[in-house]
Amino acid sequence: MSLTPTPADKFSFGLWTVGWSAQDQFGSASRPDLDPVESVHRLAELGAAHVTFHDDDVVPFGSDTAERDRILDRFKGALTETGITVEMVTTNTFSHPIFKDGAFTSNDRRVRRYGLRKVLRNVDLAAELGASTFVMWGGREGAEYDSAKDLYAAHERYAEGIDTVAAYIKSKGYDLRIALEPKPNEPRGDILLPTVGHALALIAKLENGDIVGLNPETGHEQMAGLNYTTGLAQALWADKLFHIDLNGQRSIKYDQDLVFGHGDLFSAFATVDLLVNGFPGGGPRYDGPVHFDYKPSRTEDVQGVWDSAAANMRTYLLLKERALAFRADPEVQEALEAAGVLELAQPTLAADETLESFLADTSVYEDVDVDEVAARGFGFVRLNQLALEHAIGAR
Amino acid sequence: MSLTPTPADKFSFGLWTVGWSAQDQFGSASRPDLDPVESVHRLAELGAAHVTFHDDDVVPFGSDTAERDRILDRFKGALTETGITVEMVTTNTFSHPIFKDGAFTSNDRRVRRYGLRKVLRNVDLAAELGASTFVMWGGREGAEYDSAKDLYAAHERYAEGIDTVAAYIKSKGYDLRIALEPKPNEPRGDILLPTVGHALALIAKLENGDIVGLNPETGHEQMAGLNYTTGLAQALWADKLFHIDLNGQRSIKYDQDLVFGHGDLFSAFATVDLLVNGFPGGGPRYDGPVHFDYKPSRTEDVQGVWDSAAANMRTYLLLKERALAFRADPEVQEALEAAGVLELAQPTLAADETLESFLADTSVYEDVDVDEVAARGFGFVRLNQLALEHAIGAR
Amino acid sequence: MSLTPTPADKFSFGLWTVGWSAQDQFGSASRPDLDPVESVHRLAELGAAHVTFHDDDVVPFGSDTAERDRILDRFKGALTETGITVEMVTTNTFSHPIFKDGAFTSNDRRVRRYGLRKVLRNVDLAAELGASTFVMWGGREGAEYDSAKDLYAAHERYAEGIDTVAAYIKSKGYDLRIALEPKPNEPRGDILLPTVGHALALIAKLENGDIVGLNPETGHEQMAGLNYTTGLAQALWADKLFHIDLNGQRSIKYDQDLVFGHGDLFSAFATVDLLVNGFPGGGPRYDGPVHFDYKPSRTEDVQGVWDSAAANMRTYLLLKERALAFRADPEVQEALEAAGVLELAQPTLAADETLESFLADTSVYEDVDVDEVAARGFGFVRLNQLALEHAIGAR
Amino acid sequence: MSLTPTPADKFSFGLWTVGWSAQDQFGSASRPDLDPVESVHRLAELGAAHVTFHDDDVVPFGSDTAERDRILDRFKGALTETGITVEMVTTNTFSHPIFKDGAFTSNDRRVRRYGLRKVLRNVDLAAELGASTFVMWGGREGAEYDSAKDLYAAHERYAEGIDTVAAYIKSKGYDLRIALEPKPNEPRGDILLPTVGHALALIAKLENGDIVGLNPETGHEQMAGLNYTTGLAQALWADKLFHIDLNGQRSIKYDQDLVFGHGDLFSAFATVDLLVNGFPGGGPRYDGPVHFDYKPSRTEDVQGVWDSAAANMRTYLLLKERALAFRADPEVQEALEAAGVLELAQPTLAADETLESFLADTSVYEDVDVDEVAARGFGFVRLNQLALEHAIGAR
Repeated sequence: MSLTPTPADKFSFGLWTVGWSAQDQFGSASRPDLDPVESVHRLAELGAAHVTFHDDDVVPFGSDTAERDRILDRFKGALTETGITVEMVTTNTFSHPIFKDGAFTSNDRRVRRYGLRKVLRNVDLAAELGASTFVMWGGREGAEYDSAKDLYAAHERYAEGIDTVAAYIKSKGYDLRIALEPKPNEPRGDILLPTVGHALALIAKLENGDIVGLNPETGHEQMAGLNYTTGLAQALWADKLFHIDLNGQRSIKYDQDLVFGHGDLFSAFATVDLLVNGFPGGGPRYDGPVHFDYKPSRTEDVQGVWDSAAANMRTYLLLKERALAFRADPEVQEALEAAGVLELAQPTLAADETLESFLADTSVYEDVDVDEVAARGFGFVRLNQLALEHAIGAR
Repeated sequence: MSLTPTPADKFSFGLWTVGWSAQDQFGSASRPDLDPVESVHRLAELGAAHVTFHDDDVVPFGSDTAERDRILDRFKGALTETGITVEMVTTNTFSHPIFKDGAFTSNDRRVRRYGLRKVLRNVDLAAELGASTFVMWGGREGAEYDSAKDLYAAHERYAEGIDTVAAYIKSKGYDLRIALEPKPNEPRGDILLPTVGHALALIAKLENGDIVGLNPETGHEQMAGLNYTTGLAQALWADKLFHIDLNGQRSIKYDQDLVFGHGDLFSAFATVDLLVNGFPGGGPRYDGPVHFDYKPSRTEDVQGVWDSAAANMRTYLLLKERALAFRADPEVQEALEAAGVLELAQPTLAADETLESFLADTSVYEDVDVDEVAARGFGFVRLNQLALEHAIGAR
Repeated sequence: MSLTPTPADKFSFGLWTVGWSAQDQFGSASRPDLDPVESVHRLAELGAAHVTFHDDDVVPFGSDTAERDRILDRFKGALTETGITVEMVTTNTFSHPIFKDGAFTSNDRRVRRYGLRKVLRNVDLAAELGASTFVMWGGREGAEYDSAKDLYAAHERYAEGIDTVAAYIKSKGYDLRIALEPKPNEPRGDILLPTVGHALALIAKLENGDIVGLNPETGHEQMAGLNYTTGLAQALWADKLFHIDLNGQRSIKYDQDLVFGHGDLFSAFATVDLLVNGFPGGGPRYDGPVHFDYKPSRTEDVQGVWDSAAANMRTYLLLKERALAFRADPEVQEALEAAGVLELAQPTLAADETLESFLADTSVYEDVDVDEVAARGFGFVRLNQLALEHAIGAR
Repeated sequence: MSLTPTPADKFSFGLWTVGWSAQDQFGSASRPDLDPVESVHRLAELGAAHVTFHDDDVVPFGSDTAERDRILDRFKGALTETGITVEMVTTNTFSHPIFKDGAFTSNDRRVRRYGLRKVLRNVDLAAELGASTFVMWGGREGAEYDSAKDLYAAHERYAEGIDTVAAYIKSKGYDLRIALEPKPNEPRGDILLPTVGHALALIAKLENGDIVGLNPETGHEQMAGLNYTTGLAQALWADKLFHIDLNGQRSIKYDQDLVFGHGDLFSAFATVDLLVNGFPGGGPRYDGPVHFDYKPSRTEDVQGVWDSAAANMRTYLLLKERALAFRADPEVQEALEAAGVLELAQPTLAADETLESFLADTSVYEDVDVDEVAARGFGFVRLNQLALEHAIGAR
């Protein structure tokens, strides 16, 4: 297996990732702004297949139409030259102070309407550029204080906003799906749709939910102490894993946006294992772009930016190599079998079993030797040790 | 407003709460086992209206039918004598080692079948005792290790199990609804359906999901750093808040099960505010029992058990008093208005507004003075200070 | 007790708190820069006694000497006019990118030397303005990656830097003490001296540690899930509580810097109880300024800034009122007694007891009825309920 | 390098680790009790060099002297037969309900005295068995409620207790050092001495602190979101790293006690890197036993117990192999150099530099081109990627 990234690997980068000039909550920028056109060229050289962006990443907030057209033409030129495609577009509804209380759920209706129009405008651009996914991260949809929001109305407005965008996409006939990106907090004290689960639950109630799914981000789930791979699994189970944002996070703290694998490394192995091998017993697969949403650390210069971009891809490919070997190892297969992992695909009730026959079957309950069944050792630690040894290239 | 609990307050206690003998992960029991019959009497004296229990709380695991009947007869006698009713029943599928890898999602199909039968058996008891809610906390449904579960199959089996129980309830014509109780971790490393959101998302995919809702617990959401009141709100928005478990938790750590209010006090005020006042702009309300799922600390003797039970109710009533005053305060109403809290109930698009007219309306986007709109101060801190002052009885 | 702040309350504010223009990690400023001179006047009107500042808060980074003098003269004028005094000064060694890898522990020796000089220069200013405390928050002293620091050398350099500043203070004869401010993370992945304990431990090894103590911040300890009041207590026990930074934080997440009491309210009550009443059995007290280090939320306008400043003081005074009543309540005194809280001040060995006599005393061990001793109920829940009821003004 | 553990590796196991019968907070035991004698034999076969234990692990609480002697004789026989030695002994002052409010800091003086005697008795046993370290984990020293403890008195009593034990050791002439084990919470809401830092700070104030140091546990520091390796480093810097407890923890949650490496794998690599290679620029080293304090998961049978014990050692040896290769890699050395990691060992002030000359040197401050210095890229991401690739055996 090659460790050199190629477009077949479907690696994708947000322009805001490499383009981050490293201004943070406690300090000013440590790097110059990058020209998006240069970023496209550099990412292409490194082996990426796609770029993604917020409207404001490419066209500064407040640009007039002529300026916008000029900028976009130049940007499209870079795409053509490099073969890079735009697989996803997203809208910045969090940086400008107009969105300080959110966009779709701002208490100020003027802001809700303005935000919705900003998003719709960007949907057109996404379609024009051939993107297949439109991500929505509602980073400012939330509150610091419990009294600051009518939480029923907030969910109503959030649903209204998403449904309106989805309706617009359908009305235009765009080949575009929406992917919501959950996050528990930061920059708001509590953000609405804090996890994969909450977003799936909202989608289930939408009118146009058929074209709305998820874009789970590694660090965002981990900021709530949740298992990212399990989140991906539930999204896949619900047939809603439309996109992914890979990065790194070390424990529950501020949003770190480290390079993929530079956070919880063993969990990253599990994520790659799911992505490249699928579930042990089969089932839906994710086949979309492998998108990195990270920040090159503020300590790095521009060379460090490109080193870190390359590090995301290389780590992914290394873990892929290890994950493929893990599943191919006969000892692992035997351990999976012994642990009952493959047995879980069997329905609890037999195909032809009725509730009545199940209830009448004394071998299920009345006659069970509970101590004997309880004595089974699952061998999970041994299995996990096999996974660990594959993850670190020791087998 | 009276601060003496009465049945009209609908206070409810799990028998396992006061009955906990205080054996924990690091130490043996510090209190004697309580007789459930005595607990019913004591809780009645303290002003509770209901009790709830796991099967094993009342009838020891493995009791034969005669013993079970004898115990239950005596228990029903206590109910009759005191007027206490059983509003909820739940099943213990986590203590016995047979459930060490879960019940509905154990890798061992024998366990899945056994667990399902244990639950169904208990559904009959719930119906017989007149309970309206059947809680399912799948505390062992999960894993410590990423390779230990086929996560697609796990969600399949979880859904199958719940759907089977729901189908059984329907087939029997029981007036009973299922309420799932999410928890992020402990006693498993990662528990399936870790939050309110994940459970809502699963329910949305069930065949018999109409009678399946949620039983969110204060501390469980807070163990993931999430806002409990916001979780209740999303469950209400989805029309799925079937039951509540109130208690206390101090930050992200092991499951503390403190007395309600003894954890995050200001958040408890917000919870009570929602429960007694509803959303500021109206919407669905929770009208069920106020159920406490807490543990009297291991440092307490039996007197401390009853003091702590009383403390849950008294704290609730005190916060209720303060929450009613909060909403009735004209200054608060004015501050809510100023903060736009009530404005959020207005749809973003007008009732008669089409997408076309919305897009064509330049006053929404093109002509907006973004700096002027952005300059609005929401006054959330002032509003929160009003809430705080009401919470601490200073207004 | 008056709820109107007066200078006797020793309330103090960082100029960077009210002056924060609300630019954060994900968005640009939502408020104009404030003139420090105006802030001094407004804080005086609100009842504050003191202000504090980083060098760069008052004199922009890179100002020449003439400009610096002009600015400082005007600033001193405001102090004179209002009677506000400067009780603490601190140095910004975290905003400019030169400090991106820290100041005293930067891997670049040029930066270490530059940072040390920037601090020393500011020590002179602190002395000139009559400050009694010089705070050091080493926000950038740390790393995201384990290989990025020689952690032995880092502690060596940190100690060297602090010792050098302390030596300078002594050499100048300034009446000034250094207070270190711990923080676990943000803006670095892991910050050196992450908690009160780590800072105390470092101080114990300094040559000039006699004039070095702590400035613990509420939210910083809570970001590590630690109990702030317990941290204050250990600092007091070590005779090192030189200054305090009060604010609010809700659980383990990014640094929120909410208004004091707007985070963990019940914990804030405990903090105030310690500050105004001292330990139950006596011991060292904190008698310094009550300093707030918070950020007015980004949703607020300038009016909201002053409302939030006032909210800090009012909440403190309200909690003080309640804490005084708590300790004065005879029922509380009785409960403290019953819980053995006052008994803990008795040494475990009697004053005249030798190890030999203690070991020979069979009533201590051999003859103890462990079950009888173990049966004691401490009544901690009852005591905590009394605290809660006082905290919410219900007694 | 051999991956087969031998006594030269100094691997050590607590008898309570393999001996845990898997009763937890939510369920009863899933495995039989193990005979400590058998555990000694099995651990010897697996390649361990040492065992450690709490008094109650070997001699049941409450045994009389004759029974105790009989048990200990048999235990010593196993040691002789296997060549296993006892390197550390510790005392259980947390399981029996007499210790429900702590031992050295219980509000009940009878308990403090009883606990102290239980510890002293066990010190004799430790000395008799040739242990060099006496660990103290004060798991119950703490509180759930802020009013439950006089926190000044608590620190006084804690110090008194430790000092008394240390005095006793000295008076007996035992070749034994005390190692305190910090933990932030669980089983108490907040435990005193919650982190490495707090324990170091207490030790600094002891009379007999010269023989008191630390036993940091991986998971305990990580439960506070802290970096374990940084904690080890500060303990080494203070010359107080007397012992280590290695295990695994996944994020901030209940105490998981997983196999070493099965938690935060990349952090485990950093820990091993420090242990086997020392600090990059030299300094104190840890040369003691490699002690594992973990729990075989409740899902495992007895075979799983021994598999998990072996997994700890194998993971350590695999990571050791990788850490040695990491430091030996010339590209890594070059990257460390480029990142300034080795430069940090240089004092900030030159050996012959006075404060006066430093202040007078305009090249340090006045003449610095801050933008040029700030522009340096540290290359930390590249360095971390090199570490990651070595950790996963890719270089």
